[in-house]
Amino acid sequence: MQHRPTRIAVDAVGGDFAPEAVLEGVTAALAADVDLTVLLVGPDSVVNAFAAQHPRAEGVVADDTIGMQEHGASAVRAKKESSIVVGCRLVRDGEADAFFSAGNTGAMMAAGVLVTGRLPGVMRPAIGTALPTTGDPCVMLDVGANADCRAEHLAQFAHMGRAYAQAAMGIAEPRVALLNIGEEATKGSLLAQEAHALMAATVPGFIGNVEGRDIPTGAADVIVTDGFTGNVALKLMEGLSKSLLGQVRDAMTSSAAAKVAAAVLRPALEGLKERLDPDELGAAPLLGLKGLVMIGHGSSGPRAVASALRVGAQAVRQDVVARVAASLAVVEPASETPEA
Amino acid sequence: MQHRPTRIAVDAVGGDFAPEAVLEGVTAALAADVDLTVLLVGPDSVVNAFAAQHPRAEGVVADDTIGMQEHGASAVRAKKESSIVVGCRLVRDGEADAFFSAGNTGAMMAAGVLVTGRLPGVMRPAIGTALPTTGDPCVMLDVGANADCRAEHLAQFAHMGRAYAQAAMGIAEPRVALLNIGEEATKGSLLAQEAHALMAATVPGFIGNVEGRDIPTGAADVIVTDGFTGNVALKLMEGLSKSLLGQVRDAMTSSAAAKVAAAVLRPALEGLKERLDPDELGAAPLLGLKGLVMIGHGSSGPRAVASALRVGAQAVRQDVVARVAASLAVVEPASETPEA
Repeated sequence: MQHRPTRIAVDAVGGDFAPEAVLEGVTAALAADVDLTVLLVGPDSVVNAFAAQHPRAEGVVADDTIGMQEHGASAVRAKKESSIVVGCRLVRDGEADAFFSAGNTGAMMAAGVLVTGRLPGVMRPAIGTALPTTGDPCVMLDVGANADCRAEHLAQFAHMGRAYAQAAMGIAEPRVALLNIGEEATKGSLLAQEAHALMAATVPGFIGNVEGRDIPTGAADVIVTDGFTGNVALKLMEGLSKSLLGQVRDAMTSSAAAKVAAAVLRPALEGLKERLDPDELGAAPLLGLKGLVMIGHGSSGPRAVASALRVGAQAVRQDVVARVAASLAVVEPASETPEA
Repeated sequence: MQHRPTRIAVDAVGGDFAPEAVLEGVTAALAADVDLTVLLVGPDSVVNAFAAQHPRAEGVVADDTIGMQEHGASAVRAKKESSIVVGCRLVRDGEADAFFSAGNTGAMMAAGVLVTGRLPGVMRPAIGTALPTTGDPCVMLDVGANADCRAEHLAQFAHMGRAYAQAAMGIAEPRVALLNIGEEATKGSLLAQEAHALMAATVPGFIGNVEGRDIPTGAADVIVTDGFTGNVALKLMEGLSKSLLGQVRDAMTSSAAAKVAAAVLRPALEGLKERLDPDELGAAPLLGLKGLVMIGHGSSGPRAVASALRVGAQAVRQDVVARVAASLAVVEPASETPEA
């Protein structure tokens, strides 16, 4: 159906293991998808050397880099030729369909808003992230862009998350839920109660509240929350999964007999580990922008980069930005103008 | 040192598996602690039959019961002779040193405040809960009593949680942290930023922010958060632990060879499961009251009941209520009166 290649810009110098992990991930993604072209953004020596060896890679020189510890918004304003700013500009100008970086998250959020720009009517762009569950993966948003939210923000996150689940995850009718601390509409904080009422009135596929214990079971396809709660939940899931699997591994190496038994179980447990691995699920989109901007974990390895490009290409081909834009039409509040 | 027996009132009819699980747990607790006396609260037929067979058990007849699904505050107001109201009254009147129920959580919170009563200066009682970590258990509060909090509430939770960690968990100098979404003082929601500043100025042992990923690693002894975030985090930990261990078990029974290997590993994995089991860590105290009121999980089995009594007796002997009261003296804000 798609004859024009999908063009994704990639920050060659973003993340703890750049550029090696990024280049390896891009190589794998290009091999897996013949309709993909990558615009590799970074220093001349890195990007053009790579492009010379890969027919569907192009080098885009960006001489500056934003470090992982820099203040995001200030760095974006100061470093116009950094790879993150150049990548977001490629998306704004239509030269790339999407941009991925595993670099400074705050800088990606700032450049997404300041350079790529918000879709009309978007109050607050939100970071969505796919989470592994015992069923199919679900998308949770916001996981950190907005620590303080109002009910209308949450309702808009719901619409954007629903459009993303449809486009990027192929779920025709996503079940959308509000993260809360009880099942009933009247439970929870004032924010949650107000958001519940608004979502019940305006969000297609709204199934009500889910609680913390429901996140890992796939009880919903889209889980909406404020960026504070979402970030705590996301990092808790990462930390607890790592800790529990580490403890299982320790138990399995606690004696010579255990080690032999563990060797027998390794294939089954490796399958489990892969299923739980967020690296398989793509990067976190910053939803609500005029283009697709995807934020990777700082520790992204080659597999995480490759899956970000796989999911990103799928989202582009399914017109995720147009779908998010269309989803907003139904909720644009009369009294609310986009915030600066 | 302690020659007067420790007297703990127990709701015989609270929880999904009452009265059997409760009676079995009480029997185990009495056997393990010769200085413990239990005041068993519930229907005559249950409590006096038990007391007749156990020298250090006394029956206290309460003819009414608050169901698990009833609205907490309304039920407490309507049912003055329910086991939950009677138990909280025993604590108020000094006839019991503590009260434990695995029944309706909302009713326990309401009866704790309305019947047992708040300590002077307490703005909001908070539910604390001990969490398993890869190190020693930590206590997190609030995990659900207060969905909406102000910074001064969080600072007071910190003082109460610190006193509880000292008395019930035997930690001389607890490390107290704020749950937040970044390490720096300026990160997070407006609430978290304000709470950080207040805690840094007033809370002994304050070590700054911890993030979601730090909860399972024992990075702090006391983790302070609002009741919305805390409840989401607690239930997420319960749900994810259950889900992950279930998936490990599934992997281990995925083939005949795996089953044989799993049998070898069972002892080591059982040890892990026990260490992760919240049933080992006692019940959740409602901190800030004039007595010790402990809320058990609705699904409490005999082991959970017994460990609630073990930890509760330890807390009573270490004068937890007096310590919480003393901890409040340093922060009582001039402009704040207890809320109705």
